[in-house]
Amino acid sequence: MQNEQLIEWLEENLKRVNLVDSLEQKNGFTRLGFTEEETKAHDEFVSISEELGLTVTEDAIGNKIARWEAAGGSEGAVASGSHLDTVTKGGAYDGAAGIICSLGAIKQLKEENFQPKKPIEVICFRLEESDRFGVSTIGSKAMAGLLNKKDYESVKDKFGVTLKEAIESQGYDWNKIERAARPVNSLSSFLEVHIEQGKRLENKFHLGVVEAVACPLRLDITIHGREGHTGTTLMSERSDALVAASVLISDIYTNTQQLNARQKYPVMATVSKITNEPNVISVIPGKVVLGVDIRSVDDSLKEKVYNRLKEQLGQLEKQFNVDTSVEITVDNKSVFLRQEMKETLIELIGKQQLTYTVLDSRAGHDVMNLAAKWNAGLLFIPCKNGISHHPEEFASINSICHGSLMVSEYYRHYCS
Amino acid sequence: MQNEQLIEWLEENLKRVNLVDSLEQKNGFTRLGFTEEETKAHDEFVSISEELGLTVTEDAIGNKIARWEAAGGSEGAVASGSHLDTVTKGGAYDGAAGIICSLGAIKQLKEENFQPKKPIEVICFRLEESDRFGVSTIGSKAMAGLLNKKDYESVKDKFGVTLKEAIESQGYDWNKIERAARPVNSLSSFLEVHIEQGKRLENKFHLGVVEAVACPLRLDITIHGREGHTGTTLMSERSDALVAASVLISDIYTNTQQLNARQKYPVMATVSKITNEPNVISVIPGKVVLGVDIRSVDDSLKEKVYNRLKEQLGQLEKQFNVDTSVEITVDNKSVFLRQEMKETLIELIGKQQLTYTVLDSRAGHDVMNLAAKWNAGLLFIPCKNGISHHPEEFASINSICHGSLMVSEYYRHYCS
Repeated sequence: MQNEQLIEWLEENLKRVNLVDSLEQKNGFTRLGFTEEETKAHDEFVSISEELGLTVTEDAIGNKIARWEAAGGSEGAVASGSHLDTVTKGGAYDGAAGIICSLGAIKQLKEENFQPKKPIEVICFRLEESDRFGVSTIGSKAMAGLLNKKDYESVKDKFGVTLKEAIESQGYDWNKIERAARPVNSLSSFLEVHIEQGKRLENKFHLGVVEAVACPLRLDITIHGREGHTGTTLMSERSDALVAASVLISDIYTNTQQLNARQKYPVMATVSKITNEPNVISVIPGKVVLGVDIRSVDDSLKEKVYNRLKEQLGQLEKQFNVDTSVEITVDNKSVFLRQEMKETLIELIGKQQLTYTVLDSRAGHDVMNLAAKWNAGLLFIPCKNGISHHPEEFASINSICHGSLMVSEYYRHYCS
Repeated sequence: MQNEQLIEWLEENLKRVNLVDSLEQKNGFTRLGFTEEETKAHDEFVSISEELGLTVTEDAIGNKIARWEAAGGSEGAVASGSHLDTVTKGGAYDGAAGIICSLGAIKQLKEENFQPKKPIEVICFRLEESDRFGVSTIGSKAMAGLLNKKDYESVKDKFGVTLKEAIESQGYDWNKIERAARPVNSLSSFLEVHIEQGKRLENKFHLGVVEAVACPLRLDITIHGREGHTGTTLMSERSDALVAASVLISDIYTNTQQLNARQKYPVMATVSKITNEPNVISVIPGKVVLGVDIRSVDDSLKEKVYNRLKEQLGQLEKQFNVDTSVEITVDNKSVFLRQEMKETLIELIGKQQLTYTVLDSRAGHDVMNLAAKWNAGLLFIPCKNGISHHPEEFASINSICHGSLMVSEYYRHYCS
């Protein structure tokens, strides 16, 4: 199969899983996890997979597994895949590009009459993005047996819909989602291809071989001050929760910037959410809740940010006469991928005469959950200006083609 | 009439206008302007007024005017009054105490067979509080001919209901509300009694004679940064709108505190509202809108805070690579009340052998609008711990009685 043909196929089918005729959509793509939109994209994944001659099954939480049986033997499958949900007004590439690389690899192998010695799978996960529920990679967590259902019982989206209700709305039974966990011998390896969501590859390398995935530490910080009339409460008599919060927000920013100057891996800390009560023009803010997202491949750096933040809260309590509390909502330790897979991928990149660099992933991906149980790898392809989670997110079809060629190499390597 | 009887009457009727049997209500009182709740309280005002032998009319925006005609002549009325709307979960005294003081004065004058030489009025205004629509004293603005309808056409509450729709929902015609404006010769003076909403009187003085009312300058400040993935965007690559906003919030606080150290009148500046977009845990804030409330009797201090804030925005644009804009949503010049009324009130307080101090009002009140056209005065009674706009708001019935005795003195003075 010529690359030109492959590129045409990839382009066509990328549109199909995005449910559009053109990838240029002013408002981007909104397919939140466990909505009709995500399900429609999954349906399209099933159609394309079946057209390629794969047999598709669905697990108890709605992940799709498109399978190519090996002639003999019943070894663990060699799998690759990603997800098809997006954030609100996201792009056409985060997740979808990886799915298309995997399906494109099947297209190539089928055309060359490849006969796999192990079963091949393409896996399409449910709800990878944290946009809707504040929790992420739910489908891959379930498959890896990492979904502690109790932790997710009270999780709600902004309309008050619980994760349970969302899952059930798409036809799955909350009481049975544990059944999505696969036995360790059912898979032998997993590869994910994903857009980088950064600027380390663009105009420099064809591919990035990821050695570690930075996982988030997330906090809810509550600051209780005292409401009062904005006109009659003197500046010296106030316990303004928003003023205390603002000092914390700028301190987290400044401190994290300084911390980066001295480290091998970067650490990022963001106050991304804020709610202010009562949020009325004539009333001094009485209560503020901040959502903080802290990421680094180096868990000790995340802890440093956390410790400094706790210290700062103690100071704010005295300075502004407020009460504060911190709840850890997510604490995922960062994941280092196996050396063996990394070396194999570098060797396979050489076969395709592509350039690469080794780097860390600063966002979480489905692969991090599979890495807990299986030999797993992650390849990045460049994306324009590092932009993602945005209608302007873009990866060239050549880059997607490189990703797809690598998935073919991966399947050939492990299934020959 | 003995004070004990008056106190009993005031207590009973304060409950009536608050529509309760007990003033202790855990969730306070919620009678937002132009809602059924406000209208019910107005209906109760009408009943009590009629029981006292007053004739009640309603103007084009729903203000109630309870009138006691003078035997001869047709001079401008001697009026007093306040409002019966509250903030969300407000108290039973802000507004209602003033209404009851005025009605209690009528009760006293009727019992002593007083024969007024000028017409007497008690006026109950619509929508004084800014809680619902972010705009305040709508009823009194209309009566004073200060309501520029064009400025209020796009005003909405948090459910998207426009002020126009709210006014019409209570039976008034938006196209006719100008008719609420009264000719200058229809009134000769106006007195409002109100709880202080501060701590300058409590345990020190029976009454406060207000010489000036601080009116707010209100701003909407928009800060545009750039959204990005919280995990993949390095700290050094960010334009975080919330970080820029937080530096502004703490600067406004610190600067305003410093400004107070050197001035005769205090100035208060509060960032009371904030909205953050997209407010999603994995996305760097791209847009923040702040609502700022600035108050002082001294308009030049409000301007100083504003100028410093504009300067600071210029610095933030450079420092954080953000765009900013400021919209002035309210710019009410502060109101100094007439010397003649102030001196008369001090003289009348002496007659009742009560103690007083002269002070400024740090919140806006209906009287400030009437002062633009008529001889107007404002008396404060103490309230507990300075708390208002809160279920714990409290003024003793003795203090309310002092207020009511003063309204009687005022009516006697101007109508004898």
